[in-house]
Amino acid sequence: MIHPTAIISSKALIHENVTIGPFCIVHKNVEILGGTSIGAYCELGIETSLAIEKTLIIGENSVIRSHTTVYTGSKIGGEFQSGHYVTIRENSYIGHSCQIGSRGDIQGDCTIGNYTKMHADVHIGKGSKVGDYVWMFPEVLLANDPIPPSDTISGVTVEDFVVLAAKVLVLPGVTIRKDAVVSAASVVKADVPIGKLVSGSPATVLCSADILRMPGSPKEKAYPWRKRFHRGYSEYDITNWLDE
Amino acid sequence: MIHPTAIISSKALIHENVTIGPFCIVHKNVEILGGTSIGAYCELGIETSLAIEKTLIIGENSVIRSHTTVYTGSKIGGEFQSGHYVTIRENSYIGHSCQIGSRGDIQGDCTIGNYTKMHADVHIGKGSKVGDYVWMFPEVLLANDPIPPSDTISGVTVEDFVVLAAKVLVLPGVTIRKDAVVSAASVVKADVPIGKLVSGSPATVLCSADILRMPGSPKEKAYPWRKRFHRGYSEYDITNWLDE
Amino acid sequence: MIHPTAIISSKALIHENVTIGPFCIVHKNVEILGGTSIGAYCELGIETSLAIEKTLIIGENSVIRSHTTVYTGSKIGGEFQSGHYVTIRENSYIGHSCQIGSRGDIQGDCTIGNYTKMHADVHIGKGSKVGDYVWMFPEVLLANDPIPPSDTISGVTVEDFVVLAAKVLVLPGVTIRKDAVVSAASVVKADVPIGKLVSGSPATVLCSADILRMPGSPKEKAYPWRKRFHRGYSEYDITNWLDE
Repeated sequence: MIHPTAIISSKALIHENVTIGPFCIVHKNVEILGGTSIGAYCELGIETSLAIEKTLIIGENSVIRSHTTVYTGSKIGGEFQSGHYVTIRENSYIGHSCQIGSRGDIQGDCTIGNYTKMHADVHIGKGSKVGDYVWMFPEVLLANDPIPPSDTISGVTVEDFVVLAAKVLVLPGVTIRKDAVVSAASVVKADVPIGKLVSGSPATVLCSADILRMPGSPKEKAYPWRKRFHRGYSEYDITNWLDE
Repeated sequence: MIHPTAIISSKALIHENVTIGPFCIVHKNVEILGGTSIGAYCELGIETSLAIEKTLIIGENSVIRSHTTVYTGSKIGGEFQSGHYVTIRENSYIGHSCQIGSRGDIQGDCTIGNYTKMHADVHIGKGSKVGDYVWMFPEVLLANDPIPPSDTISGVTVEDFVVLAAKVLVLPGVTIRKDAVVSAASVVKADVPIGKLVSGSPATVLCSADILRMPGSPKEKAYPWRKRFHRGYSEYDITNWLDE
Repeated sequence: MIHPTAIISSKALIHENVTIGPFCIVHKNVEILGGTSIGAYCELGIETSLAIEKTLIIGENSVIRSHTTVYTGSKIGGEFQSGHYVTIRENSYIGHSCQIGSRGDIQGDCTIGNYTKMHADVHIGKGSKVGDYVWMFPEVLLANDPIPPSDTISGVTVEDFVVLAAKVLVLPGVTIRKDAVVSAASVVKADVPIGKLVSGSPATVLCSADILRMPGSPKEKAYPWRKRFHRGYSEYDITNWLDE
């Protein structure tokens, strides 16, 4: 299951039923749990001074797609899915069942919860904190330098169940609270309260997100989305959400 | 013409005068027509459950630049040009003489006409329909989920000769009609009528695009661009355009 | 220091203490100066009709990270740092101690000064001129076609010490003068005067940038940033800046 062209350190710890594609490089200080598949041209475990002798752990039954680059010192939960050309820097913690789309960039020292899903080209600045069940659509950018250039890292906080639509920019230090929805191309400069829909540049509160209805279905609430959208979640979660 | 480090399935169908660069991977269910050149580190014919046993066809005299990833089930016309790090997912139809710039992402189930050209970082959401002779500039994004997250795919439609300038976002389900011009960084939330220039967020109609003149040349109309810009088109097309 | 899987032209000129990673390709007409390190999957010296038999020179003690693509005819100064998946096209001149973040795209015929630093996903259109000590944050885009599509290349000019924050778009032909600061997500359609802070779409002048103070420190000016931010610069520069 390890392609003969792959270059695997004898100190890497590869569990059972792991597939590693052609032309991959796996350095020492990498542990890949069982059932995980690594696409071609991936380099795992690049070590820098930011994470010396710290292990990169990739959870079980994950799929890392081709041309992906991951540094040491991060821990990625099981059932992880990455797109192509993804970069994950040092010392980040990514929960289980997360998804990072192609060209996603996790810049290091980030915490990302469980079941959080990012479409393509999402850029998570160093020091960001992202909760569980968050959705980020293409080209979302979480910034982190409040007075650029500086040495201050003021990461964004995104709480559980938040939706950031395409091309949203969140400025440094902002907190987006649970169940909030940020509409496409908004620039979020101030904290967003729980459950609100915000839009614009700077983003302002339009209404409670639970006022929105599904297209063509005026009685069905669109948000919180967990009441209506269940693909890929556990029975346990879905039952809890419907019982809320 | 096939580099010895390339890994080519014996079931792939490679026509005459095809060049395949170092460290490429060509899976089964791939057909590459004559005269085409594939750069280094490309992986062609990744198969998923979305396109089982469906062939990827790459047309004649095409150039696929390095680090590009293409899935099965798509058909790409001749004289195609891709930049680097391009991704093309399953079951898309791309006409002849098209161009996709570096890091372009065609997300699958798309239809793209002939002679359509995309600069770098263009992202075409699943289910989009793009006509002939369309121009898209860097970081254009065609979205497709009207009430994210959902299972509804509501692709954008872009008709012939449309121009989408840099960083334009088109929201799900929108139709941009023939000859329209969308100015840079606009967010298009509603259909754009034929031949109009739109701008802003949300994009609104400023005027007919044919009011615009070339810089420094007050008598020469800038749009429709096919009356003045002919590089890379056929004599047949150019003659028709000038005779219109 | 050259990995055995790398493919190096016998005509490439590789100086002492150069490291070249696995699966790299170095063509002829490439000169790599001493102490430089090239990550895995890089292809250096792609030749096109735009730079025939012109050498690519990469300066001393540089770090080119993995999956990077560089064409012939460019000259890159010493102490250069690139991220992953970077593309540099033909005939560009990049000074010393510059930095290009991951997925950066230098489209050719550009001039970039010394100590200029770009974060991830910065796209520099063909024909741009960027000065010394410039900062560009993620997803900055310098456009160059004033009436798209056309054959006119009207590059942006960015003078010394300018700061372009995240997701800024600068339209073709615009000049941004020394010490100006462009706030995040702005669309710059007209020239920006020396030392001004501009914001919005279209960007308008808010104030002199030197009115801004550091967060929590009402007596410390935030701009010009060279009076307060010195990481990575020479003693000579820092002394001059403090003496200004």
